[in-house]
Amino acid sequence: MSPVSDLTTAPLRVANLGLPSFAEDLRGLGTDVVQVDWTPPLGGDARLGWALARMLDGDPVGDRVAAANVQALERLLAAQPTWVDVRAARDVLPGLTSRTILHSGPPVAWKDMAGPMRGAVIGALIFEDIADDEETARRLCDRGEVEFSPCHHFDAVGPMAGVISPSMPVLVVRNEAHGNLAFSNLNEGLGKALRFGAYGPDVLERLRWMRDVLGPSLQESVRRLGGVDLKAITAQALQMGDECHNRNLAATSLLFRQVAPALVGSDLPRSQVQQVLEFVAGNNHFFLNFSMAACKAGLDAAASIPGSSVVTVMARNGVEFGIRVSGTGDRWYTAPAERIQGLFFPGYSDADAAPDIGDSAITETFGIGGFAMAAAPAIVQFVGGTPDAAVRYTREMYGITLGRNPAYSLPTLNFSGTATGIDIRRVADTGTLPVINTGIAHKEPGIGQVGAGVVRPPAACFAQAIEGLAGELNLL
Amino acid sequence: MSPVSDLTTAPLRVANLGLPSFAEDLRGLGTDVVQVDWTPPLGGDARLGWALARMLDGDPVGDRVAAANVQALERLLAAQPTWVDVRAARDVLPGLTSRTILHSGPPVAWKDMAGPMRGAVIGALIFEDIADDEETARRLCDRGEVEFSPCHHFDAVGPMAGVISPSMPVLVVRNEAHGNLAFSNLNEGLGKALRFGAYGPDVLERLRWMRDVLGPSLQESVRRLGGVDLKAITAQALQMGDECHNRNLAATSLLFRQVAPALVGSDLPRSQVQQVLEFVAGNNHFFLNFSMAACKAGLDAAASIPGSSVVTVMARNGVEFGIRVSGTGDRWYTAPAERIQGLFFPGYSDADAAPDIGDSAITETFGIGGFAMAAAPAIVQFVGGTPDAAVRYTREMYGITLGRNPAYSLPTLNFSGTATGIDIRRVADTGTLPVINTGIAHKEPGIGQVGAGVVRPPAACFAQAIEGLAGELNLL
Repeated sequence: MSPVSDLTTAPLRVANLGLPSFAEDLRGLGTDVVQVDWTPPLGGDARLGWALARMLDGDPVGDRVAAANVQALERLLAAQPTWVDVRAARDVLPGLTSRTILHSGPPVAWKDMAGPMRGAVIGALIFEDIADDEETARRLCDRGEVEFSPCHHFDAVGPMAGVISPSMPVLVVRNEAHGNLAFSNLNEGLGKALRFGAYGPDVLERLRWMRDVLGPSLQESVRRLGGVDLKAITAQALQMGDECHNRNLAATSLLFRQVAPALVGSDLPRSQVQQVLEFVAGNNHFFLNFSMAACKAGLDAAASIPGSSVVTVMARNGVEFGIRVSGTGDRWYTAPAERIQGLFFPGYSDADAAPDIGDSAITETFGIGGFAMAAAPAIVQFVGGTPDAAVRYTREMYGITLGRNPAYSLPTLNFSGTATGIDIRRVADTGTLPVINTGIAHKEPGIGQVGAGVVRPPAACFAQAIEGLAGELNLL
Repeated sequence: MSPVSDLTTAPLRVANLGLPSFAEDLRGLGTDVVQVDWTPPLGGDARLGWALARMLDGDPVGDRVAAANVQALERLLAAQPTWVDVRAARDVLPGLTSRTILHSGPPVAWKDMAGPMRGAVIGALIFEDIADDEETARRLCDRGEVEFSPCHHFDAVGPMAGVISPSMPVLVVRNEAHGNLAFSNLNEGLGKALRFGAYGPDVLERLRWMRDVLGPSLQESVRRLGGVDLKAITAQALQMGDECHNRNLAATSLLFRQVAPALVGSDLPRSQVQQVLEFVAGNNHFFLNFSMAACKAGLDAAASIPGSSVVTVMARNGVEFGIRVSGTGDRWYTAPAERIQGLFFPGYSDADAAPDIGDSAITETFGIGGFAMAAAPAIVQFVGGTPDAAVRYTREMYGITLGRNPAYSLPTLNFSGTATGIDIRRVADTGTLPVINTGIAHKEPGIGQVGAGVVRPPAACFAQAIEGLAGELNLL
């Protein structure tokens, strides 16, 4: 080590952390400066910073958090999501009244809902014969005669607007390792669809067909198959270019391979079997809702472990982004939803885009989707960027997660597992936010998807979550 | 540049090409030596070396070869292989007598055939009711009462033993860009199978079922579909972890997605449809034979272009490896088949392995399979090596090919196309041999596959081909 006196005699070399203006001043004086891009954790909130420090390794509270996280990670890795049934939502979601409409993301009031979600709610009310037309539907909502709830409050998830109404068929996924169930609606396909807020006659007609034909057919097939192992399909698909959020081509094909022979072997009318097969084969995103329910089933098993700093939900309602953390149970930590950086379909631009929306970020919460982009280099043609960037996203996520999932191994990373178990402590400490790849909905109801891209949650959600967990741990 | 006198005064630094013993001697004297791994092209045959030099750029003969190769590459890139039909071999292979048995690789006499091929021939003769049992079959062959021919002489290809007999159903693939047809048998699945030389009752029973049920069903489905675009399936599969030789999981699934609704929509009995769907869904290699016929259809369009140095066939019969070159038409250049470096299934070792066998190297000849291993990092778990090595194989093949196929783009190489159009000049000049990944058959008939690995053709095939083409070009 040099004596301090050297400081005044040797040429000055400075490393500047944070505010670049200091570095610029020194550079102006001819000094050699290295600028380090750094911001204090948690926006510089000293009270939270101290709490975070105690939650980390080297403090008895940190030990307690670490022990809780071991349990949470074990639950995530042990998850065995199996598709076991298709049922009407009202029959399997306890407490769902005939006037309840579920939606994506954290709670949101009718008056605050984003365009696509309002459209989807109107469509669901007409579909349920609660309203005859748009006007009636709006009036019912304005008068508070419809009950709204996040899907997540019913162990369910839905992409985009995420609207699930009582008579819609839902996938039933059982986590065989933990015994819990999770649910999702069925994927309608691209273009005009309820999840983008469309509710024209064609959309409603398809919803009725899904209720009357698709749902019962899939129910028959999965019962004949005695359940379908979604963990196995996901693991295979991750070696086939899918990340199982925005790319589900392989997973859909693998699911189809199981469902088709079962349907043909059933007593369902042959024309109905053909309709169903053509519908599934015609939609490369069909597996998305299975993927989401599988992730939800795994994450719910890791929820409500006292002291755990693992994120169990990330979800967006088009207005707010919300997360939940295992150690604080059902509490939501919310902040305004971000806008998505990405590629727009021809004729559309950022001006057309709704903010980040949908429950599909449950895939990233479980460690696939954006976290597994290294598995899906071809997806950059859809969400933007380069194949190298896809690998970098996955590597970056190793920095904020508790472990790697050996069941979901990524060939391009030498069969390393996906980054699993987002730790709010590491997010807050490093400033690295989870990466989510996602579709972009048009801000007006009913137009549909206008692009796809990459988005990060607001940092504020994690600061709140640190505060919430610190409270539980009596650190504040 | 230093004056020559420096050689005697400056410290000596030596680059040694070829024989390492010179370098070792110098190193022993304390001299700084760089050893360059180099062998003279074409085994040092000066006559062929001069001919090769004249075939390369900078010579009018080289210009002529280059012009022919432009045409050959155009034909390869333009290929549009479409599966159009399934027919009995005898009905679509002109000149096939009722006593002709086709086999893989270059020509081979009965007495010289490898174990698996002999077994497959016996099985085919029983299947065709030409022989009642093994003994009769052997006797007929010994007496020369069976006519043998390579599949390639009938524009056909078959994996492993590659045995096609007159009543077997064959895939008919039309190259829509060029109008030519190519053919392959249907894949029987893993385990005991005719292509590995098995001919027990179960194998023959399945062959009869394939003739009577599977073939007609696939015929019905492809006719209803009005043809299936194999180029599109291959292109997608290359972005889904397949290289379409030893890994066909994605391609089989994508094919299945098209075939299943067509079968259900047909008038075929429902139980038959179910049988066929279960058979196809149960065999992840089912697409291999489609892939082979598609490659054959593309390569045949580039065959017999005067002056072209492009390889149009690489095939093995279990005894010899043979290649054909566009500029010398139907001539075979053969040398003893190599042994395969790879991974063996539990209980087997190199001692059990047959030498390299089968027409499936037609996939590498077209630029997929081993040439596209960068697309299929997961395959290293099957053939050995690391994901990095998979990428290196593909990059290495760029060095011996004429171009890249933009239709078959590889995400991990930034969407660069597969290496296409093996040029015997570049193989001979660089000493880099084509890489083939392949299954390993047991050397005894009927046991089946015992492993998989990577193999290169014998260099002698390419030296002979240079000599053949040089003759055509009046260089010798």
